[in-house]
Amino acid sequence: MLEFTVEDLSAEEIARMQAIYEPLAISVRQLVDATIRSEVDAETVAAVKADIDAATARLRSKQIDGAFGVRRTPSGQSMSWGNAVIGLRNPIAPPLVIHRDDDGRRWCDFHLGAAYEGPPGHVHGGVSALVLDHVLGEAASPDGKPRFTGSITVRYLRACPLGPLHSEAQITRVDGVKTFVSGYISDVEGITVEAEGVFITPRWLRD
Amino acid sequence: MLEFTVEDLSAEEIARMQAIYEPLAISVRQLVDATIRSEVDAETVAAVKADIDAATARLRSKQIDGAFGVRRTPSGQSMSWGNAVIGLRNPIAPPLVIHRDDDGRRWCDFHLGAAYEGPPGHVHGGVSALVLDHVLGEAASPDGKPRFTGSITVRYLRACPLGPLHSEAQITRVDGVKTFVSGYISDVEGITVEAEGVFITPRWLRD
Repeated sequence: MLEFTVEDLSAEEIARMQAIYEPLAISVRQLVDATIRSEVDAETVAAVKADIDAATARLRSKQIDGAFGVRRTPSGQSMSWGNAVIGLRNPIAPPLVIHRDDDGRRWCDFHLGAAYEGPPGHVHGGVSALVLDHVLGEAASPDGKPRFTGSITVRYLRACPLGPLHSEAQITRVDGVKTFVSGYISDVEGITVEAEGVFITPRWLRD
Repeated sequence: MLEFTVEDLSAEEIARMQAIYEPLAISVRQLVDATIRSEVDAETVAAVKADIDAATARLRSKQIDGAFGVRRTPSGQSMSWGNAVIGLRNPIAPPLVIHRDDDGRRWCDFHLGAAYEGPPGHVHGGVSALVLDHVLGEAASPDGKPRFTGSITVRYLRACPLGPLHSEAQITRVDGVKTFVSGYISDVEGITVEAEGVFITPRWLRD
């Protein structure tokens, strides 16, 4: 059902591709922010729009069919470059850079700006759920093999302000194909949102 | 804590602003998609990036401080144009256009492309949570007054493919300041993800 593409790429080739495409995504993230916040006049907006349409046409002159997918190398390196949360080529992704401690805990420090707003000046509750789904999912996969969310419960303790944030998660229990994980998002004053999830080992990874 | 900006704008002025800024966000959504999927060479990417940086600088030559916020008119019209799910000026938002039936049910048909990917070819589980948080939240607010997510539980029945999708939600029960809502996302073959949420009436809206 899920097709992970295997590509025979060397570490050097992957680094070369990253050097080409990552800066573009970083620039488009800035454009996304400016698109929301700009107050320039109608003529300037129209001129900028024409430039963007031309840029899009140039990029589309050669493009893959459909979404980026998840590409793996024979050595096991995974390229989730299109991922909505961590994808380095995806301007929608903050992107999160998730670290792993020796004890299996996963954590990241990140910044959410205007593009992630729900209530005025605050993170959209669904964006908090998006971040937590991903961080908990990474914690559920200590061996690097994917686990998929079975269910997740997110509890909102208080409104989460836009700006610098932290998230972390760890496994609390494993029961057969089910891995139980808990985690949270915090700002400088403490936890704003917490979550518990049950992650399932896919059939094709079971013994 | 949450500042909803009140602006004395006429319906005509709002329509005029929408006509200026909405097409820009639509174009940037296309650019986001192309940024993920493009296979053009390094020189072309560098040239496109320079054009985008120039466009961003022009937009930023006059911009608001911080995020867009939620602006209301004295007549009660709400402009959530920066919202991460429904914001017509936010290129990250699909954006969802949510309809309301006479019985209070909220629903929307929408399309998720490459930017919303998690597992290969499929919607990121966290993006499903993002959509459901918003649709359930709208259903929880039949009077147009905001309710905020207390908690939400999302259950993944099967992987949700990228492409055309449907979501709907409705209130199941009201108990004081708590409004209970359930809903789902479906593709052509049926429900892929379901959710239940408890939404809280903020203190400043209580009797």
